[in-house]
Amino acid sequence: MSSFNELVSFIRTEVNRDLKRLPFPERPVYLYEPIRFALRGTGKRFRPILVHLAGRANNADPDSLMKIALAVELLHNFTLVHDDIMDNDDMRHGQAAVHSKWDDSTAILAGDGIYAIAQILLSGLPDRANAICRSFSQATLEVCEGQALDKEFENDLSITEDQYLEMIEKKTGSLLGACAEMPATLVGADKEVIDNFDKFGRALGIGFQIHDDLLEIYGNPDDMGKSLGSDIAEGKQTLMVIKARNQFGKEWGTIIADPNAPNLMDMIRSFFTEKGIKSETKSMAQSYFKSARESLENISDINRDELNKFVNLVENRTY
Amino acid sequence: MSSFNELVSFIRTEVNRDLKRLPFPERPVYLYEPIRFALRGTGKRFRPILVHLAGRANNADPDSLMKIALAVELLHNFTLVHDDIMDNDDMRHGQAAVHSKWDDSTAILAGDGIYAIAQILLSGLPDRANAICRSFSQATLEVCEGQALDKEFENDLSITEDQYLEMIEKKTGSLLGACAEMPATLVGADKEVIDNFDKFGRALGIGFQIHDDLLEIYGNPDDMGKSLGSDIAEGKQTLMVIKARNQFGKEWGTIIADPNAPNLMDMIRSFFTEKGIKSETKSMAQSYFKSARESLENISDINRDELNKFVNLVENRTY
Repeated sequence: MSSFNELVSFIRTEVNRDLKRLPFPERPVYLYEPIRFALRGTGKRFRPILVHLAGRANNADPDSLMKIALAVELLHNFTLVHDDIMDNDDMRHGQAAVHSKWDDSTAILAGDGIYAIAQILLSGLPDRANAICRSFSQATLEVCEGQALDKEFENDLSITEDQYLEMIEKKTGSLLGACAEMPATLVGADKEVIDNFDKFGRALGIGFQIHDDLLEIYGNPDDMGKSLGSDIAEGKQTLMVIKARNQFGKEWGTIIADPNAPNLMDMIRSFFTEKGIKSETKSMAQSYFKSARESLENISDINRDELNKFVNLVENRTY
Repeated sequence: MSSFNELVSFIRTEVNRDLKRLPFPERPVYLYEPIRFALRGTGKRFRPILVHLAGRANNADPDSLMKIALAVELLHNFTLVHDDIMDNDDMRHGQAAVHSKWDDSTAILAGDGIYAIAQILLSGLPDRANAICRSFSQATLEVCEGQALDKEFENDLSITEDQYLEMIEKKTGSLLGACAEMPATLVGADKEVIDNFDKFGRALGIGFQIHDDLLEIYGNPDDMGKSLGSDIAEGKQTLMVIKARNQFGKEWGTIIADPNAPNLMDMIRSFFTEKGIKSETKSMAQSYFKSARESLENISDINRDELNKFVNLVENRTY
C-alpha cells in the first residue's frame, strides 16, 4: 500500500474512533439508540478525510480539524437518515436504515439530534467558529435545496443535463466544497484562496457523483443490477439516462418499455456503451476532476500533493 | 391597553415583519414554498418576545437581538413541523400542518431547511456568535430529548409526575431558558447571571406548559373538548391525568372506561375539580412562576420590571 493510502486509512480509523467516542448519554433511549446505530454503519468517511487533507495543506490545527471533520460526517449522516425516509430506502451503509429498523418518527428525530450535535461540536472551535458555522450552515441549506430538486425531478422526463448538474452540485458538491474550504477559513486564508478551495471541492463532488452514476451501472453485480434496471425503467434519473432520453428518445423508449424484461440491465449497459453515452459520461467526470486540479493550481503557498492524490483516488475508485 | 401590552404587541409585529422579510429564494419550490407557508401561521411569537425583553433588561444591541429572536422562532417552527408529522397532528397555528397540506417528505425537508436558516442567521452575529451558537444548539438537542421522552411516555401508564416535569423542562423549558439567557451571553454577562437567566426561562417554561395543560382542559369550547376527552381516555398524558391515575387509580379508571361516553369531558373536568387536582395543578404552575421571579431577583444591575410583567402575562393568559 502506498504511503498516501496508508494516510487515508489512518485518518479513517481516527475519525471512526472519535465518532465512537462522542459522549452520547444513554437516555432518552428513543433518541440516542438510533443515533448510535446510524453512526455505526460502514461509511467511507470520504468527507472527513477531505477535511483533514485540506487541513494538512493549510497547516491547520489537527484538533480543530477533527471537530470540523466529525461535524461534517454527522451532517452527512443526518441527511442520509432523512433522505432514506423520503426515498423509502431500507438499507444504508451495510445495515438497515433507521426508519426501517424503527419507524419514521424515530428517524426524523434521530436525524435532528445528529445535526444538533454537529453544531454543538463546531461551536466548541477555539478560533473562527463564527465563519466556520456560517459555511457549514450554508452548505446544509444548499444540500436541502439539492434534495428538494431531486424530489422535484422524480418522474419529470423533461429534466436536462444542466438541471441534473445543478442538482448534484447542490446535493453533493456544496458539502465537499465546504469540506475543502473550511480548513482554509480556519487558518484565516484570503477570500480568493477560500473560493478556490470551495471550487475545488465542488468540482470534485460533481465528478464523484458522475463517477458514482457510472459505477452504479457498470460496477454492480447482476443481482443488484436487476432492481436498478427496473428503477431506471420506472423513472430514476441519472446523467446517462438523461443523455439517452434526450439524444435517442425513441430508441431509448423501446429499451426501457418493459421494466420486467429479462436482461434489462444488460440491454441498458450495451445501449449506453454502443451509443457513446458511457464514454461521454466518463469524459464529463474527467473534466470535473481536471477542473478540481486546476482550482488547486490557482492556490499558491500550499502543499497540494496530498489533495491531488485524493482526486486520483476518487477518480479511480471501483467500489 | 397598558404600555407593557403595547410593547409586547409592537415586538410581535416587528418579529412578524422581519420573518416575512427573510430573503428566501423562489426556488426550489419544493423547499421554499412550504417553508414560507409554515412561517405564515398565527403563532404567538412568545419566544422571540422573551428574547427581546431579556435583551432590553441587558441593554443589548437590538439588531443582534432580532437575529437571535428570529433564529429562536425558526427553531420553534422547525420542531413543530417535525413534531406534527410524528404526532400526526393535522392543524397548526390556524392552518393545515405542512405534512398534511403536502406530505411527510416535504415536511421533513422544510423543517430541516428552517433550522439551517436559523443557524445561518446566528452565524451573522457580530459579537459572541460562538457562545450564542453553543447555547442555541444545546437547546435544540435538549428539545429533541424532550420530544423523545414524550414519545417514550405515550401509552406508558407508569409515568410519574417527576418524569413528566423532566419531559416538559426539556421540551419547553430548555428553549425558554435559552431565550432568556442568550441576550445576557450576548453582552458578555458573568456565568452566574447567565445561569440565573437560564433558570428563570426554564421555570417560566415549565409554568407555561402546566398552565397550558389547565387551559386545554378548562379553556376549551365543548366541540374541542370532545376529542380531547377521548384522547385522554386513550392514553394522552398531562399532569392532571398523571395525578388522577396515581392518586385515584380505580375511580379514575371508571371515569375514562368508555372513550365514547357522552359528557366524558364534563365528567373529567368535574373529577379534576372535586378531587382537588385542578387546584393542586394551579398551585404547581404558580410555584414555577414564583421560582422564575426569584431567579430574576438574584440578578443585580438589571431592570427586571418588563420581565416580571411578562411572567404576569403568561400566568394570566386565557387563550
